[in-house]
Amino acid sequence: MSSTNTQVRLAARPSGLPKDSDWEIVEEPAPTPGDNEFAVAISHISLDPAMRGWMNAGASYIEPVEIGAVMRAGAVGRVTDSRHPGFAVGDHVYGAFGVQQHALSDGNGVNKVDPSLAPLPTYLGTLGLTGLTAYFALLDVGKPKQDDTVVVSGAAGAVGSVAGQIAKIKGCRTIGIAGGEEKCSWLTDELGFDGAIDYKHENVAQALRQHAPRGLDVFFDNVGGEILDAALTRLARHARIIICGAVSQYNAEGGMRGPANYMALLVARASMTGMVVFDYADRYAEAARELAGWMREGRLVSREDVVEGTVRDFPQALLKLFAGENIGKLVLSIGGD
Amino acid sequence: MSSTNTQVRLAARPSGLPKDSDWEIVEEPAPTPGDNEFAVAISHISLDPAMRGWMNAGASYIEPVEIGAVMRAGAVGRVTDSRHPGFAVGDHVYGAFGVQQHALSDGNGVNKVDPSLAPLPTYLGTLGLTGLTAYFALLDVGKPKQDDTVVVSGAAGAVGSVAGQIAKIKGCRTIGIAGGEEKCSWLTDELGFDGAIDYKHENVAQALRQHAPRGLDVFFDNVGGEILDAALTRLARHARIIICGAVSQYNAEGGMRGPANYMALLVARASMTGMVVFDYADRYAEAARELAGWMREGRLVSREDVVEGTVRDFPQALLKLFAGENIGKLVLSIGGD
Repeated sequence: MSSTNTQVRLAARPSGLPKDSDWEIVEEPAPTPGDNEFAVAISHISLDPAMRGWMNAGASYIEPVEIGAVMRAGAVGRVTDSRHPGFAVGDHVYGAFGVQQHALSDGNGVNKVDPSLAPLPTYLGTLGLTGLTAYFALLDVGKPKQDDTVVVSGAAGAVGSVAGQIAKIKGCRTIGIAGGEEKCSWLTDELGFDGAIDYKHENVAQALRQHAPRGLDVFFDNVGGEILDAALTRLARHARIIICGAVSQYNAEGGMRGPANYMALLVARASMTGMVVFDYADRYAEAARELAGWMREGRLVSREDVVEGTVRDFPQALLKLFAGENIGKLVLSIGGD
Repeated sequence: MSSTNTQVRLAARPSGLPKDSDWEIVEEPAPTPGDNEFAVAISHISLDPAMRGWMNAGASYIEPVEIGAVMRAGAVGRVTDSRHPGFAVGDHVYGAFGVQQHALSDGNGVNKVDPSLAPLPTYLGTLGLTGLTAYFALLDVGKPKQDDTVVVSGAAGAVGSVAGQIAKIKGCRTIGIAGGEEKCSWLTDELGFDGAIDYKHENVAQALRQHAPRGLDVFFDNVGGEILDAALTRLARHARIIICGAVSQYNAEGGMRGPANYMALLVARASMTGMVVFDYADRYAEAARELAGWMREGRLVSREDVVEGTVRDFPQALLKLFAGENIGKLVLSIGGD
């Protein structure tokens, strides 16, 4: 175990895409646990589009990261020292440990994970908040019925790829929207989506007319912008739009773009509903069991896009998300395990 | 009874506000009923913001008015000739009779109204589709609970003024947004709203912070645009936004403006839902009875802004709506009764 703790701290609130100067790399002594605390050597850090929102000032569904604070991140690691009765050296744990090599914890919000059941990065993806977000957003907000047409944007991303597979498991006709041929082939050939639309090379509204001739019953939106506007033109009566993210807009310097076609909600008697996974905390265990079961049965494919590096690679790795370079869950492996 | 039938027909699809050249005034012989038909002398014509949408090409919640067709409008009048067993000369009736002096009908979608219970214009307003829209949109989509904060835009308009009063009847704290001091005073002094915001002279987002410190539980939107965006910044957790109209946007020449702050739906775990009153047809009678009861008890004030004129005044009268000149339900009286 290294005796220094390299951290990535927020140095400035970005305008547009985060720049190097928005971050500060700090080296501190590795922390030592006090009573009822334990130390974690972090091995894998979650990279999430939502991180961009946490970097902004102002109220949102979660407090912003303060200037000078370690960047917030979900992570997994191994307990290296413990004065906490519930956590022993060698335990593998998930928590919001931040972008750093070592974290101290009192156990609050920390869950043990079992690397013999699934690789550690999967606990940041399909078996973590990513999978839980897909699960509750689709099932509780989208309420898909068998034979419904479900369309997912950002479908080759972490949340989208799980959401679309759950829709298939529930008997829905499932169409994914993603950027590029490789992602689209993955959706149809590997994940069993009924169709995929390559928004970089197709007119999304026209392609939706072909792929979803009866209209969209559920639209699971991770991207916002033009794709949301296209989906609005193709809603079935009583459609449910799930607002899970808007990755196309997070770095927009002129402010967010609103969905100009929102009056389609009236025409279709449709709804657009936002969700935050934290509201379902009392059902995480139940959902994680179901997700793990589907994985075991081979019905749910989990894919992680693991960047091998160090904590210092976090700023560059994060930009991969906004460039749409990842397939599946983007994870930074920092070799702490 | 005049032997000619003056009609206002749609001559061209408007760009922006309807112009004189978008209309054609036609004189035809007054119609004579065939078997199972009756003739109606129209006395009052409903003026609705939604009319602007009916003038556009393309699919919506209702077919567009065809070029050359009589402009669609709800109207009341008196049966002047009948070969229909269900309707007798002298009956007062409501129907989608169009912008003309005389209509033929087979009784489909026509209801008798009783001028001894309420003035005829009220059957186009509070006791007509206007009141029913307010009723179902607020109660079925907005689902207000006692002590909820309900904010209504276009609050001095036909639908908004009824919706806000129903919210008061249901025990909600009710705030109206309207343009100008006269409308705002009417809301608070005559209709019992708890507060009113004059969007022409106040910053709506700031005023909402004062009037609705706990946030908006229900936002009943008739206007869209900047006011919808302001409301989105002040949502309470699990808020319901009712998309009933977007009068600020119907004549926008550069296309509709979408709500840039729509990601507030995620932050607040809120929903935005469209509605069309036609879906509630099987409950119209029940709702109309309840609305009439509240009027009788003095708990629901009905106000009609009646323009006295002829059918030829329809194009100018319609523009009053988009200029926000009416208070309450705008009705064109053409003296047919």
